[in-house]
Amino acid sequence: MSNNVLDLALIPGDGIGPEVTAEALKVLKAAIGADHVKTTEYGLGAEHWLSTGETLPDETLAAIRQHQAILFGAVGAAPNDTRIPSGLLEREILLKLRFAFDHAVNFRPSVLYPGATSPLANPGDIDFVVFREGTEGLYVGNGGSMRAGTEYEVANETSVNTAYGVKRVVRAAFEYAQQRQRKHVTLLHKHNVLVHAGHLWNRIVAEVGEEFPDVTHDYLHVDAAMIFMTTDPNRFDVIVTDNMFGDIVTDLAAAVTGGIGLAASGNLNITGTAPSMYEPVHGSAPDIAGTQQADPTAAILSAAILLEQEGYAEAAQKVHTAVWDDLAARGATARTTSQVGDAIAAQV
Amino acid sequence: MSNNVLDLALIPGDGIGPEVTAEALKVLKAAIGADHVKTTEYGLGAEHWLSTGETLPDETLAAIRQHQAILFGAVGAAPNDTRIPSGLLEREILLKLRFAFDHAVNFRPSVLYPGATSPLANPGDIDFVVFREGTEGLYVGNGGSMRAGTEYEVANETSVNTAYGVKRVVRAAFEYAQQRQRKHVTLLHKHNVLVHAGHLWNRIVAEVGEEFPDVTHDYLHVDAAMIFMTTDPNRFDVIVTDNMFGDIVTDLAAAVTGGIGLAASGNLNITGTAPSMYEPVHGSAPDIAGTQQADPTAAILSAAILLEQEGYAEAAQKVHTAVWDDLAARGATARTTSQVGDAIAAQV
Ligand SMILES: CC(C)[C@H](C(=O)O)[C@@H](O)C(=O)O
Ligand SMILES: CC(C)[C@H](C(=O)O)[C@@H](O)C(=O)O
Repeated sequence: MSNNVLDLALIPGDGIGPEVTAEALKVLKAAIGADHVKTTEYGLGAEHWLSTGETLPDETLAAIRQHQAILFGAVGAAPNDTRIPSGLLEREILLKLRFAFDHAVNFRPSVLYPGATSPLANPGDIDFVVFREGTEGLYVGNGGSMRAGTEYEVANETSVNTAYGVKRVVRAAFEYAQQRQRKHVTLLHKHNVLVHAGHLWNRIVAEVGEEFPDVTHDYLHVDAAMIFMTTDPNRFDVIVTDNMFGDIVTDLAAAVTGGIGLAASGNLNITGTAPSMYEPVHGSAPDIAGTQQADPTAAILSAAILLEQEGYAEAAQKVHTAVWDDLAARGATARTTSQVGDAIAAQV
Repeated sequence: MSNNVLDLALIPGDGIGPEVTAEALKVLKAAIGADHVKTTEYGLGAEHWLSTGETLPDETLAAIRQHQAILFGAVGAAPNDTRIPSGLLEREILLKLRFAFDHAVNFRPSVLYPGATSPLANPGDIDFVVFREGTEGLYVGNGGSMRAGTEYEVANETSVNTAYGVKRVVRAAFEYAQQRQRKHVTLLHKHNVLVHAGHLWNRIVAEVGEEFPDVTHDYLHVDAAMIFMTTDPNRFDVIVTDNMFGDIVTDLAAAVTGGIGLAASGNLNITGTAPSMYEPVHGSAPDIAGTQQADPTAAILSAAILLEQEGYAEAAQKVHTAVWDDLAARGATARTTSQVGDAIAAQV
């Protein structure tokens, strides 16, 4: 692939998004050569909305769709910024991209890196990946309210789950598990309460499991998973779960592996109909924006996932090794966002 | 109250349920005097279902309703017992009781007791209570499936939230917070995605908050709460949240405070229309049933919540102190379920 040019859409976004994305790009360029990367920046986020009233217009969406992949920073206004309706940017930019570009798999690895500090007393080795479904469940926006604002209000939210959507993320999880040493898939759900959705997820895991006789699988209620993730995270290899449970469990996974500053992700379009999007799990952290205090490691690791997924396996490995070494060597001295990026880029 | 007789329905249930309930009752009797407790046992659970096909018949429900309160153990078959449909007993006994008896508030305290071992390296002081809504949300059974079993299946689950249901649990949380030292309520939700339900919860918290000027309140997304609960659990005082988020977060809360063996709860009917029900958060643990290995502390602490709520504040305090002392003195020597109960009862 190294003769091709990697054509990237950049969406740095708000808060610390631009700072961490700059470092991710720096490292990515160091890994495959600046000549082999072409970037087009899209200035979406709070500022754009405040000056134009637009979040993600159709033409912009169409333009982004032309790129091979998207490197995404973070969107979201400061919680006390009353000019911007809460959650608007997240929904109309981030979630819109995930849905419009059919990001079936939200791929979120959790590794306890050397040098990273887990809040757990005995974290053990942690190395698992969550395959979070990305286009269905409670995220479909299928809710409504009647008698809103009154004492008789009823507000509903519907989780929509399809065999098609569940099967593709479950199959992706099994395929991935098959490449790993432990070859084990754990379904997280709550089928004792969510009978219909739970039954669908169980059925698909059983069916797909038959296609992968060398991959074992088990089931955990999502509440029980909270306990295992804090007492025995090493039991997990590949987790597959729905959009909302995946949202919750990946933040806990990030926490036990040393924090959201290291958690990377890829929103994967697995049919090739639109670009995949790579983003740190953390948000825009407006409180430290512009201060060069943000840790760009999550964004850099997201760039590594990008490289891996877009056909640059060797370069991805180089970035991983550089991050690994950098983390292992991190001392107590604070470095700026760009110092971290420089150090990792230099080692790539 | 001590001249009255406390009229209890006992539902020991399955697995370790009967063992731990026996110890809870032992301690409860020690606290208010055996003469002041009258118990009626209801043999519900796996065995009853296997021999009769009944889970919780209407007449039994009506009989249980006549009691002042319910002491509940656990229901649920072994996961590999294919004779019993998965989740059936949980839904048709436990959840049916919560809904039929209008258990508006699922009250779940989390305290890091002396001697309890948190999996966290630096747990700090942990002392918070979750007010989990108990009669609404994704638990209402409002789901369905079309084209079930085919590759075109669509399975939906609807979370139903009413101003009435939200307001009563939120008000209960504020009232409780007002009695506490820190007087702080945190709403956990995901309003950036679940716009309609989230808006309702936000509105009610803001409205009720106005009635309690001495109680502060804030908001956290449920995913972010995972991080705080593992890195800074001491930030929480009173948490209020919906049924599903409450289910998830209380298992994490139990984990960080030393495990589900200590987590107690009360399912509270706050209008006096039906008995409240007190139960350990743990399940029936069929793997260790009958071996006297189960820790009855969660059941005993649930009896303490019962005493507190049913008008025996002094006795409740005695049980708390006895549990506190017992936990602080626990050594490495394993005791049987009934030895733990005996020891605590002796100190009451
Ligand atoms: C910002 C928010 C909409 C998003 C989500 O809920 O998916 C975030 O929490 C994440 O995990 O990527
Ligand atoms: C057994 C199950 C139905 C129950 C629930 O989901 O509420 C349990 O997990 C709990 O937390 O009490």
